[in-house]
Formats: sequence, C-alpha cells, structure tokens
Amino acid sequence: MSGYVLGLDYGSDSVRALLVDTHDGSELASAVVNYPRWSQGLYCDPARDQFRQHPLDYLEGLQQALQQLWQSLPAGSGDKVIGISIDTTGSTPVAVDSQGQALALKPEFADNPNAMFVLWKDHTALAEATEITQAANAAPVNYLQDMGGIYSSEWYWAKALHVSRQDSQVHQAAHMWVEHCDWLPAVLTGTTHPSVLQMGRCAAGHKLMWNEKWQGFPPNAFFAGIDPLLDGLVERLNADTRCSDQKVGGLTEEWAAKLGLKAGTPVGFGAFDCHMGAVAANVRPGTLTKVMGTSTCDITLAEPAQLEGKSVPGICGQVNGSVVPGMVGLEAGQSAFGDLYAWFKDLLSWPLQHIQPHATVADIWAQQVGQIEAQILQVLSEQAQNLEPGAGNLTALDWVNGRRTPDADQSVAMAISGLKMGSSAAHLFRALVEATAFGSRAITERFREQGVPVENIVVIGGISKKSDFVMQVCADVWNCPIDVLESEQSCALGAAIFAAVVGGAYPGVAEAQAVMASPVHKTYQPNPANVQLYDQLYARYQRLGQFVSGGE
Amino acid sequence: MSGYVLGLDYGSDSVRALLVDTHDGSELASAVVNYPRWSQGLYCDPARDQFRQHPLDYLEGLQQALQQLWQSLPAGSGDKVIGISIDTTGSTPVAVDSQGQALALKPEFADNPNAMFVLWKDHTALAEATEITQAANAAPVNYLQDMGGIYSSEWYWAKALHVSRQDSQVHQAAHMWVEHCDWLPAVLTGTTHPSVLQMGRCAAGHKLMWNEKWQGFPPNAFFAGIDPLLDGLVERLNADTRCSDQKVGGLTEEWAAKLGLKAGTPVGFGAFDCHMGAVAANVRPGTLTKVMGTSTCDITLAEPAQLEGKSVPGICGQVNGSVVPGMVGLEAGQSAFGDLYAWFKDLLSWPLQHIQPHATVADIWAQQVGQIEAQILQVLSEQAQNLEPGAGNLTALDWVNGRRTPDADQSVAMAISGLKMGSSAAHLFRALVEATAFGSRAITERFREQGVPVENIVVIGGISKKSDFVMQVCADVWNCPIDVLESEQSCALGAAIFAAVVGGAYPGVAEAQAVMASPVHKTYQPNPANVQLYDQLYARYQRLGQFVSGGE
Repeated sequence: MSGYVLGLDYGSDSVRALLVDTHDGSELASAVVNYPRWSQGLYCDPARDQFRQHPLDYLEGLQQALQQLWQSLPAGSGDKVIGISIDTTGSTPVAVDSQGQALALKPEFADNPNAMFVLWKDHTALAEATEITQAANAAPVNYLQDMGGIYSSEWYWAKALHVSRQDSQVHQAAHMWVEHCDWLPAVLTGTTHPSVLQMGRCAAGHKLMWNEKWQGFPPNAFFAGIDPLLDGLVERLNADTRCSDQKVGGLTEEWAAKLGLKAGTPVGFGAFDCHMGAVAANVRPGTLTKVMGTSTCDITLAEPAQLEGKSVPGICGQVNGSVVPGMVGLEAGQSAFGDLYAWFKDLLSWPLQHIQPHATVADIWAQQVGQIEAQILQVLSEQAQNLEPGAGNLTALDWVNGRRTPDADQSVAMAISGLKMGSSAAHLFRALVEATAFGSRAITERFREQGVPVENIVVIGGISKKSDFVMQVCADVWNCPIDVLESEQSCALGAAIFAAVVGGAYPGVAEAQAVMASPVHKTYQPNPANVQLYDQLYARYQRLGQFVSGGE
Repeated sequence: MSGYVLGLDYGSDSVRALLVDTHDGSELASAVVNYPRWSQGLYCDPARDQFRQHPLDYLEGLQQALQQLWQSLPAGSGDKVIGISIDTTGSTPVAVDSQGQALALKPEFADNPNAMFVLWKDHTALAEATEITQAANAAPVNYLQDMGGIYSSEWYWAKALHVSRQDSQVHQAAHMWVEHCDWLPAVLTGTTHPSVLQMGRCAAGHKLMWNEKWQGFPPNAFFAGIDPLLDGLVERLNADTRCSDQKVGGLTEEWAAKLGLKAGTPVGFGAFDCHMGAVAANVRPGTLTKVMGTSTCDITLAEPAQLEGKSVPGICGQVNGSVVPGMVGLEAGQSAFGDLYAWFKDLLSWPLQHIQPHATVADIWAQQVGQIEAQILQVLSEQAQNLEPGAGNLTALDWVNGRRTPDADQSVAMAISGLKMGSSAAHLFRALVEATAFGSRAITERFREQGVPVENIVVIGGISKKSDFVMQVCADVWNCPIDVLESEQSCALGAAIFAAVVGGAYPGVAEAQAVMASPVHKTYQPNPANVQLYDQLYARYQRLGQFVSGGE
C-alpha cells in the first residue's frame, strides 16, 4: 500500500507540512506558517525567560499550512494521504482539564500565559528543576539515572510545578499536563480525554522520567514529596507509552474536513523534532545526528545490550524506543549554536541601531542599515576563514544560553579570554565558531568515554548548508567526517517516514528509511594538520569552562 | 626673582610647551606639536609591539612648539623666562656614541629604528625582561626589591639588551644608553658628553635599578652575568643622580637662539611625565595621583621613615627623591584605561568599516560613518549610566594591554565572563568601565596592604574631564573621593613648577606648589549605597584575574 504521507514539524516559530511520496521518497510539496500570536511576541517575557505558546497558534497554523500545501497540488491530492506523523519541540507541556481540554482553549483562561504551552526554552522553572534533582538524588532509586542525572528547567515536571506555584487557578483546573507532541496527535484523533489519552515513548522517557526499569513513571509519593502541588498528577498518566511507528488512531471527521484529508487517516505517535530528524538522517549506532540551528539537538542510537545497563551521565537521557523501536535513543545538545553568532551580530549592530545619522540622510541610512546587518555574518566568516585556528590566542565558551549538555546547567554563561588590543571582530568570531565546535566535541567525548561510539556525524538544519567555514571548523575540531544532508526539512521528512510506517506503506522504519531518508549533500573531512592544535585549544576551552562552572 | 617659566611635556604623540607666570601661577600660553615622523607611523611595527621615535622628532617638535608659543605673546617674552624643566615618557632610552651623540642623529644610523628612542610601550624585550628578573632573584642582593620585584619589558636594561642582541652595529656603536628625560636637558645644556652627562633621580631609580641601598647601580658583574653584551655599560653611568629641583646647567647659545630664549637660562633635571604631573596635583602622603589617559600612571609619596625600609612588591618602584626631594615617590599604573574603551569602540565600528553600502549612496555613507563612530562612546556611556552596578552579571578584566601593576605581566590578557543572550553593548561597556576601576582599585589595595595609605585620589588627564559616568563609577569602586584638576596640561604645569624652583623664583617645591599647583575642578564622592555590591564584584574581578594569571 503506497501513497502520500504527511510529515508535520512544529518548530519554535512555525509549523511545516511536508508531503512525500512513499513510492520513491520524493518531496512533493511543503508549506510553512508562522505562529500568528507568537510572532507578535504575545504571552512572552524574554527578560524573565518566559516563553509561552497559545494552542490556537498550533491549530490555526496547521490549517493554514495545509491550505497552502494543497494550493500547489492537483485537486484530490489529500485523498492520497495514507498516514500522518508529527514532531514538535519539547519539553513543551500544557495543562489540560478533566475533559482533556487545553486550558487556554477555555474562555476563562484564553489570555493566561500559564494556561498555554510552556515552550522548551522557557527557563522560569530553574528553582523547581533544582528541587527535583535534589529529590531524585535523595530517593532510594535515582529516577534521573537515565536522564543524565540532572533535571532541567526546560522539562515537564519542573514547568508543571512552577506554573502550579505561580497560578492557583491554573493549578486547580489542571487535571494533568500533556506534551505538545502527544497533544497534537490526540487532538487530530479525538483522544484527548484523560481516560483514553496515550503518550509517545519519546517525551515520556526523555522528560517525564518514564522508564522500563521501574515499569512506568516514578510513584506519586516521589512527586508529592517534592511538593504537594504535584500530588496525584502522575497517577493520571497512562504508563503504556508507544513508539512512533505505531498509530494513535484515525483522523476525526472534523479535522479531516479542516485539513482536506480523509477521515480515519492513521495518525502516528508523536516525538520531538530532532528524534524524527535523526531518522531522516539514517541515525544508527556510531553515527551522531545533529540538528543544528539556534541550538543543537544531538541523537545517536545504541543496541540495548551494548550499554550493559549503564547510564550515560550528563546527557538529555537514553530511552529504549524513543527514536526507533528496539534501540536505545540517546539525546544531547547545545543550548546555543547559531544563537551565539546571532548574539555577536547583534552586538556589532549596536551603532547601526542606536546612533542616528544626520536627519537629512535618515531615510537613506535606514535603508542601508538592514543591508549592512544582513551581511555581517557573511563578511565575518570570510575574514575569520582566513585566520589560523586559534588565531589571536582567544578562548571562548558557547554557553550564552547556559549549558544543555554535558551536565545541564542553565545558570552558566559564556566567557571569552585572551583579548588584547589587536583582537578584532574577525578574531572574536573565529573564537565563537571554535567555541560552538568545542561545545559539540564535549558531547561526543562524553558519549565516547561512556562506551557509546561516535564515528561520524550527520548534520541537518539551517547552519549546516549556510556556512562552509563553520562546517570545516567543526570537522577539524571534532576530528571526524561530517555529512550534511540534502533535505532542507529533515525533521518533517523524519515524520513522513514514520507516517509511511503508520500508514502501512512499509513494514518498519528501516524499510521506509531505505527509500525515503535524505541523501547526503556534502561531506567535510577533517584536516589532519589542525588536529593537534585543536586538541590543545580544546583543553583550554575545558579549563575556562571548569573555571566558569565552579568559580563564578 | 620672579618671571616666566617654561614647562616642556613630551608625551607619546606630541610635545607640549607651557608658559607660566611664577608670580601667580597663571598659564600664559601653550603650544602642542605632533612628532612629524611618528605621526606617519615611521619606524614602528605595531604587530610586533615595536615603537621607536626619532630624536629629530623631539628636537624639531620643540623648536616648532616654541615658535608657536611666541606667536601669541608680546615680543621679548622669551627674555622673561627664568627656568625650563622637562618631563617625558619613560622608560624611553636611546643608544649614544662615545661622544654622547644619539646614534640616529648620525648619518649611518639615520633610518635604523634600533638607533632611535625605544618608546615606553615597545614590548619587543619581553624575553630580556624575564631574564633580568630571574637574574635579580638569583643574585645575593635582589636589585629589584624597590622596583616591585619584576623587571618589565618596557624598561631600560631589557630594551638595551634586546636591541644589542638584534643589531650588532648598534651594539658596537653604543657607548651607553640614555633616557629621553635625561637626554633632552643634556642636549639643551650641552652636557651630552659621557664625561659630564648626569641623570635625574626619577628614571635612574624607577627603571635603571639605581638605589641608595647599594649606593648607585648594581655592579657590572650582575649585568655581564645576564649577557656579556651588557658588559661595561653600567660603569659608564654617573651614579650621582639628582632630583628635579636642581639644575643641569644653562641653556646653550645655540639652543637659546633656536628657541627664542636667553643663553644660560637654567634647565632642571628631567623626570617622567606622571611624576611631574603629580607635583601639579599637590601629591602628598595619603593622596594618590592618577594620570588617566589611554593608560594610567599613578604616583603617591611616603616619608622615608614611614616605610621602615619596606619594599612594596609588584609596583613600578619606590625611589627617594623621584618626585620631590626628601620623600619616597611610589609609582604604579594600568597598561590600559582609555585604551580598553577604544578597543570596544573599534570592535563596534567593525560593520561601519568593513561592510560597504550600496554604491549609489557610498559618499553619503562615508560622511556619516565618522559622525556615528565619534558618538559611540558617548551614547554607550549614557546607556551604561542607566544600568545598575554589575548589571547583567558580567565580569571583565582591564588587561587588554597586559598588566603593568600590581605585579607586572604584559603577557596576561583581558577576559569577560557572564555573557548571556541578553548581554548588550551597554552591559559590556559598563563592565569594561567597572574593570578599569577595579584595576585601579587593585593598585590602591596593594599600597594599603603594604602600609602606604591612600585616602583620596586626584586625577589628571583626558578621561577625567570627559566622562562623569566613568569618574562616578571610579569613586564608587574605589570608595574614596576623587578630585579632578582644573589644568588641562598638568604634566607641563608640574614641569613649570620645577622650572620655578630651578630658576630661583621659589626656595623649594612646596613653596612653588602653594602658588602654582592646579586648583580642583570637580570632586566626586562615593555613593555609599554601592560600596558593598562593588566589594562583591571586585572579589569576582579578582577570581577571574587569578584564573587568567595562573590558568592560561
């Protein structure tokens, strides 16, 4: 049974719909819609790291994306769709009521940010994350053992607790909390009611402390002991979690009509974006896939037997079946990659933004400012590329958003040392690029130390195709080959691969990948001449990191 | 006997002549001339930190300055001049031949940078400075005990050795080396011949290891043990050094004619600029004077008895009589103050300098760029002033030119920590201003720890009148009042005060100061609300400094 499949990719700013032909993996059409409320900055307070998204942004964005999609295709194309799968950001949970309704969809909570999805990068729950880590360390079983040992402020339970403390109305109305990647499939299949809601393996394992070792979630006593506000929440979660090759149910009549699809079309269990992206990148043991954008999300696989029951400390978790069934998915990532470059670009744009030219030329100036700013990173790259590795003797960290892995700590910050009068913008930019590569290397070294091999790296996401300079520095610093994928929309493609399995076009993920996974666009080889120097520079990066982690 | 006196101030870029009436201290006229060869960048290689100045720049500059000076005054004014004193940068030595001729004034060396003055900020002699420090530490007497314990690459013996190693022709022709502040008075009085050349106390004590404790200079064996190239040099120096209240001799007929002055006019012993500037600022025990420009030079005084024979470690030396007779002059300083702000301004100017606008508006753009750049520090100051102390949790060091004191180390560099996505240019600028204030505080704390009191600070130099913001941060960080002097040319005024003593208008420096020293322009009081916070931030500055000093 072949046909079309629909991969839906919910990113931080937009939803992308990708239509793929299961027969040959060809990408037939795609559409992207920015979230309308989010793009206006509603419900957010960046100064406090509060980032919330309204559920209507997801639902309206989806409808618009599908409308766009069909416009470029022959009538009746929707009838050929045999499966739908969805990836989202995460951990991005929302409070739902006893009927399974997301609170912000109810009139009394329509404008309350606490009743909305708490986006992955919302860091308001720093204190709660620390309390959860402490409780896990004190418990007879350490429920964080397969989640890197440290609970993050970006994750489900910390966010649920923080919002519960902040907002008693939301707390009282919240029957349970649901991840975005579980909520959307439930909405489309009419299974949002708590009595039938079922969760994917990915979010449950990586963020909710679900684990085969304790056959589900930690007991209620564990959570109630952290704060009575959490009492009872975990008992309302269904511990029978499923991998993304399985189907949640069929598309409802209502959503079929809204989206131009057939009712009953199978919808698969959801997962996080980088997990599905990794599938499009043919992730396998020995290969690390990196979704490289403002931040990175890194995924690799291991055979369960290979790990011998061992837990890799300081990563974002290892979960049997979180990526593909029967394999342990291991997740890590950097809180900033492109964001570090963006920060520097913003810094250098300061005079353009804050100092006015003479009034008589203000219009001409204003026109040019955008053009100049748009070229900053390109010209910096050209200059930095002509410098030697470690030029100017600078050392920088990549922690401008804190540190996701290894060893999550959102409180640490970036630092730069070695600055002298001759340190130019190009020197600084090169040091920042090297810092992002060193941050990635710290992750691969952690995996290797713990017996999880990383032999090559496959990258997907914006930066990988934008900058030869960045990718070559990465290859040199990592000292391993890097494949850049051809697909511009790997996460959505990964979702489409799962949709093909859910829809019955292929018996399993491997068979679907064989036809549909993205080919390699370009390969970067490490330059052996730079390996030894980068080893020394990496040691300097680690010393600066140890000082910042311990001393500040 | 009263009349006019001439203070000559040789800075890094220009020579300034100031004519003062000894009767009431009024500043009658001044003239400034940039060194012609230096301003074209001749003989320098900034990438190697090589900075050389041609002796003709000093001599021609002086003639031009005096010509300018007389233009604004009635004819015959030169006849009223009763004394001349001179301050210069230092350590800025030159090689002279057996007749006392500066080598670059001889045709065969006219274009050889090694035959010219090696400017204070020339850092080519890093290796030689280290060797001299090691030799002093190994010697039975530590000849650096009153020079802070560490010999700097900016100083006389390191430079003489470095040039001797680099250039055998200069080495063979060099009978001895002479500091700029000793050479100029000798030229004007016709006493350059080695048989009669006599040195001021200031340079000899602070840079040449002259000390009352060993009744002159270290023995020849000490220097020859470092390198045979130094063998014999010290034996050609006259150990009878003199304070600046004494006269070298009378102006020669030749120079009287060139300068429009009377032959025989007394010329005083020279000293370094900040030492004479401190006299214009009424330096006294308990008061630290800071000449604040691209870098700082800090001077305070102590009664010899007060020090009880103790040496203050890590400063630029303590010399009996180096500032005023009978008192110990203690010198310290920061390698960068305004230079740190200039570095940041240059960084932010990068897009303006490196990215071209559309060709059709290139002319308009080019006109505006200069205007925009000229406003950067002003607008940054306005924004940074509105932030709280320590805003954004940044910590910065001020070592963008290395560290002069405490504990000289030109190899250390600047660092910034605490950077997050929200760290703006204004946050960074505030952190840099705080860093320069912390760098100053490290100096005052060193003095206080060693029993040299610092109760208030008097600042002179460009920055002190340009920025209320910087001065208030300094008052808060230093937690003591700051007086800013009215005179715009304090170093030249200090020279004029000495000229008044040398010329016989006053019996001593104190009497001349009482009439001629600069009044206070403005006083800044520390804000008690910020004291505790700045104590904490200073501790963070120290921790970062310890890491950079020890760990990199």
